Amino acid sequence: MSAQRCVNILGLGLIGGSIGVGLRERGWFVCGDDQDSSRVSLAFERGIIDAMGLRADADVTVVAAPVLAVPQLVQRALRETTGVVTDVGSVKSHIVAACDNPRFVGGHPMAGSELEGLDGADPNMFDGAVWVLTPSSTTADSSFSSAAAMAAELGAEVLALPADRHDQVVAVVSHVPHLTASTLMGLASERAEEHAVLLRMAAGGFRDMTRIASGHPAIWLDICAENREAITATLDGLIAGLSDMRNIVASGDRDALQERLRSAREARANLPVRGTHPTELAELRIPILDRPGAAAEIFTLAAELGVNVASFEVVHSVEGNRGITVLLVDATAVERYRGGLIARGFRPSVQSLS
Amino acid sequence: MSAQRCVNILGLGLIGGSIGVGLRERGWFVCGDDQDSSRVSLAFERGIIDAMGLRADADVTVVAAPVLAVPQLVQRALRETTGVVTDVGSVKSHIVAACDNPRFVGGHPMAGSELEGLDGADPNMFDGAVWVLTPSSTTADSSFSSAAAMAAELGAEVLALPADRHDQVVAVVSHVPHLTASTLMGLASERAEEHAVLLRMAAGGFRDMTRIASGHPAIWLDICAENREAITATLDGLIAGLSDMRNIVASGDRDALQERLRSAREARANLPVRGTHPTELAELRIPILDRPGAAAEIFTLAAELGVNVASFEVVHSVEGNRGITVLLVDATAVERYRGGLIARGFRPSVQSLS
Repeated sequence: MSAQRCVNILGLGLIGGSIGVGLRERGWFVCGDDQDSSRVSLAFERGIIDAMGLRADADVTVVAAPVLAVPQLVQRALRETTGVVTDVGSVKSHIVAACDNPRFVGGHPMAGSELEGLDGADPNMFDGAVWVLTPSSTTADSSFSSAAAMAAELGAEVLALPADRHDQVVAVVSHVPHLTASTLMGLASERAEEHAVLLRMAAGGFRDMTRIASGHPAIWLDICAENREAITATLDGLIAGLSDMRNIVASGDRDALQERLRSAREARANLPVRGTHPTELAELRIPILDRPGAAAEIFTLAAELGVNVASFEVVHSVEGNRGITVLLVDATAVERYRGGLIARGFRPSVQSLS
Repeated sequence: MSAQRCVNILGLGLIGGSIGVGLRERGWFVCGDDQDSSRVSLAFERGIIDAMGLRADADVTVVAAPVLAVPQLVQRALRETTGVVTDVGSVKSHIVAACDNPRFVGGHPMAGSELEGLDGADPNMFDGAVWVLTPSSTTADSSFSSAAAMAAELGAEVLALPADRHDQVVAVVSHVPHLTASTLMGLASERAEEHAVLLRMAAGGFRDMTRIASGHPAIWLDICAENREAITATLDGLIAGLSDMRNIVASGDRDALQERLRSAREARANLPVRGTHPTELAELRIPILDRPGAAAEIFTLAAELGVNVASFEVVHSVEGNRGITVLLVDATAVERYRGGLIARGFRPSVQSLS
């Protein structure tokens, strides 16, 4: 039986609370702290944490605070603890640049709730969700693997990505959709002054499209400040797309309209389904070379090649820092992945599990 | 006991099938026809209709066909039957202009399903949904009341609006959201070529926002053709709003961004909740003046003033076409409504029901 693992949660809001209660239910010892001490007491009373305050020898410390507050809290965690430090901020480049340390790896669990604060804390919030980690060349293999193992234990699918790439992607799949929902809601609300019935006529599709406009504005101000460049570039792309669409409708170009609607429909239908796991798995054993960031590189390559990692483990050898990464991946993708790994200087061995 | 009412459904797809099976379950005799005779047999076999073909003396004939096909089918229904004719097309101005007849009233039940055709036929599809009727000055009171009574019987909330106003509103709450979802999906799909992980990172908010992009393209081609003017005007408004948003993000204007997000959030929270009925009702009795379109005018005014009509009935007097409209409305709105009715020359009397 392995020793009980321990996590510090620094910031006891919706996400921090969910990680805390989720890991506690899975047998971890959970410590928690927050700048608001009444939250710490509340989390303790509700059984979300086992102990108040940080423990210096915790395996992992999770900084779960608004993006602008993250760098300072990561520095505090690096000072006060000896383990791995990760965060959950929705924009990563600035944070990763400000927290350059082998013990730190940036993170972004892509899940949430319409509830706020500890009231929304849910041990299964991350089940089937994507949890992005953004290791840099400074990140130690062991830091990356600890953070990835914690996310996987919460049921999340771990994706490793460079921080700047993460920020470009979330601008498209999260930040700009949010700003668009708000703009659409604003437009409808403006037109409702003229047409009193307008909001009563807002049926399911409109409700779906504007649901995310219910999010709390405060976090979005920080997100827009931190990811300004990618957001404005993506908004430019969307505005250009809508102008195109407008001209197609105005000119009555049926073929062009049909092609756009058809390809969007097809892309929507092909969105990956959450929480499905590949039916046939293959096992890859990859000796970790004696170079920094190897584990992160192995994961990043999987993400780039679209290879779903169902589970993984880092087995350390007795000779210090070297070890073997054991991954279970979709059997249909294993050859593609193996080729990519070899091209990058790894020496993977494959074993079919069927 | 009243005689069994009879409806013809002309066009046995998702909406026609749902109206048919819904009215049949509520005791109506349902006849059905379709240009595809195999659909008529199928509807009969599945118990969605009682009889195949149209009945000349049906109380109501519902034309449930794609918008471009509606005018011709309405003309056929007016020729072959003696009752009221209504339709369910999602754009109304062209249809209403092409079907100028006292026995016709345009309609648009704002409900749907992700299923298609008769497979999706659902007797409760319209329960709590808004059903817009677009009477013109030609529409007879009795035509309007028959169509409204049928919609109300299916559980829908009837809203009366001039056709052009309906078209402007649906451009905002339905057509442009759909085109925006498709454009956003297209943009994400384009960027996914560069970022393989992009679509795997599309979480709940993105899925909600692009859900309506799964709709069948064919009906949207007709909608965009028929409602071109309102759609392009609304797209212009959205593009202007997004350009504003882009400049606010680019310039880092936190206050302006906060104000936009806050007011959108507030507007989203104030979207009327479906299917709730006012808790306190008042009864209004309005003698129908001897002028065409009076019943429609009474309803249109309710929609304009935001007055929820919980139920209504037209009681005809023995002296021919004159009668009394009896409405149950939200008690908190009754004085506002009474004032509006008096200003338009009606003589309403109010009775509290508490």
